[in-house]
Amino acid sequence: MNKLSELKEIAVRFSEVDSMGIVWHGSYVKYFEDAREAFGAKYNLGYLRIFSEGYYAPLVDLDFKFKKPLVYGDSARVEVIYKPVDAAKICFEYVIYSLKDNSVIATGNSTQVFLDRDYALLWNNPKFYQDWKLENNVL
Amino acid sequence: MNKLSELKEIAVRFSEVDSMGIVWHGSYVKYFEDAREAFGAKYNLGYLRIFSEGYYAPLVDLDFKFKKPLVYGDSARVEVIYKPVDAAKICFEYVIYSLKDNSVIATGNSTQVFLDRDYALLWNNPKFYQDWKLENNVL
Amino acid sequence: MNKLSELKEIAVRFSEVDSMGIVWHGSYVKYFEDAREAFGAKYNLGYLRIFSEGYYAPLVDLDFKFKKPLVYGDSARVEVIYKPVDAAKICFEYVIYSLKDNSVIATGNSTQVFLDRDYALLWNNPKFYQDWKLENNVL
Amino acid sequence: MNKLSELKEIAVRFSEVDSMGIVWHGSYVKYFEDAREAFGAKYNLGYLRIFSEGYYAPLVDLDFKFKKPLVYGDSARVEVIYKPVDAAKICFEYVIYSLKDNSVIATGNSTQVFLDRDYALLWNNPKFYQDWKLENNVL
Repeated sequence: MNKLSELKEIAVRFSEVDSMGIVWHGSYVKYFEDAREAFGAKYNLGYLRIFSEGYYAPLVDLDFKFKKPLVYGDSARVEVIYKPVDAAKICFEYVIYSLKDNSVIATGNSTQVFLDRDYALLWNNPKFYQDWKLENNVL
Repeated sequence: MNKLSELKEIAVRFSEVDSMGIVWHGSYVKYFEDAREAFGAKYNLGYLRIFSEGYYAPLVDLDFKFKKPLVYGDSARVEVIYKPVDAAKICFEYVIYSLKDNSVIATGNSTQVFLDRDYALLWNNPKFYQDWKLENNVL
Repeated sequence: MNKLSELKEIAVRFSEVDSMGIVWHGSYVKYFEDAREAFGAKYNLGYLRIFSEGYYAPLVDLDFKFKKPLVYGDSARVEVIYKPVDAAKICFEYVIYSLKDNSVIATGNSTQVFLDRDYALLWNNPKFYQDWKLENNVL
Repeated sequence: MNKLSELKEIAVRFSEVDSMGIVWHGSYVKYFEDAREAFGAKYNLGYLRIFSEGYYAPLVDLDFKFKKPLVYGDSARVEVIYKPVDAAKICFEYVIYSLKDNSVIATGNSTQVFLDRDYALLWNNPKFYQDWKLENNVL
């Protein structure tokens, strides 16, 4: 089975830093999403593709562990790793590394499900996703 | 002609404060929008009403003057005032007052136009809005 | 031992809704923080108190489970429950209920640690927090 | 006199798009700030430099004109142009261009003033800024 992953560099924006002088924890939601979008662009599994296939893929699970703070001026590298599962879900693992010393800044996980255009949950993999898994050797 | 306005109280959120210890300027976009939504709820001119009539009403003009900073723990009152114009536009003026001493924190203006569902600009007032102006005596 | 909790009502803002027409998952970070700030105001354990005692209390763990979507125009009630632990941590559990039908929209947890002003981690409860626990009967 | 400017490419993030399917107007605050930070990095006039010199430089004026919408998947180029003034202010003009067809998406302006560490307004240019103007031939 293949290991699919992507790297995305991020630079801390002024607006992402809080009054403690460190990146506000909520900003990491965007860092994860930036990485997920980069993954989607690389492997043709982005929101636009999913939407054009007739589905939404909202998050149902999301967690973060914050190990070290980022400050204004810092840059980091988000690694997003696809985690194969049988269920009709898209699961990712994330690790954010400091560009300064390669230390781990934060880790996390996300799970997405498929809804059809009437927002009804799909219990089985939609065909395009099953095909995608096959093509990418993650079945 | 009527003067239509609404007041909306806001409390500064931790996430809205930047590393200078004051409310980040971008947070005021939300304060104005909060007030505009309160106006829309009071006078039945909210996004949902506009959308259900078949239109979008995106902003085309927006400006801010920041007079005094807000800090974490502060509360403020946003006054939003409807500015009647003949054109197919929705125009508002905003004044944000400190709840502490009633001093002016910020002022601003916004202008919205109407698009149909194909994102084409309306040059004339849509009927529902013309009716709304009549009902509210702002023609 | 006491059970400490607080309720905070939230109304979905236009800016919190994404292009799928539902509240963007990242907006829940703010809903949790709104509830945590309401708890802090009620029990005198807010950011300002913690800061005035000489500490920061950044999040180190945060997780969400999204059960049902919120849409624009919805209102919800966030329940935040203090979870007593011996360690030098502040732990909360969250449940977001729809105001329409009381159904569960989302759940989650957060953990905060204490840093001193030099951003060094405290391994033991700072005195003010130990006192707070005692006063509130959560030891 | 020199014309100082910088270009910054931005890619629309999923979280920046609203339920009308276009970039939420508030997201442009960040696009302008991204460009301003790029300018600051290029010409050594960023927030960190200003702060290290003993000052804050908050915005006091900000305006936007939105000409055409951006949608998810779009990329754009923000041009930020320094506007020389005698007063103790930092003034910028912004033009956002579509990367697709070079059409103008939005324009705007910002004005910043200098505060000292006690948040008192400076009526005269701080020395470091006067020197910066001289070095960059914008006096």
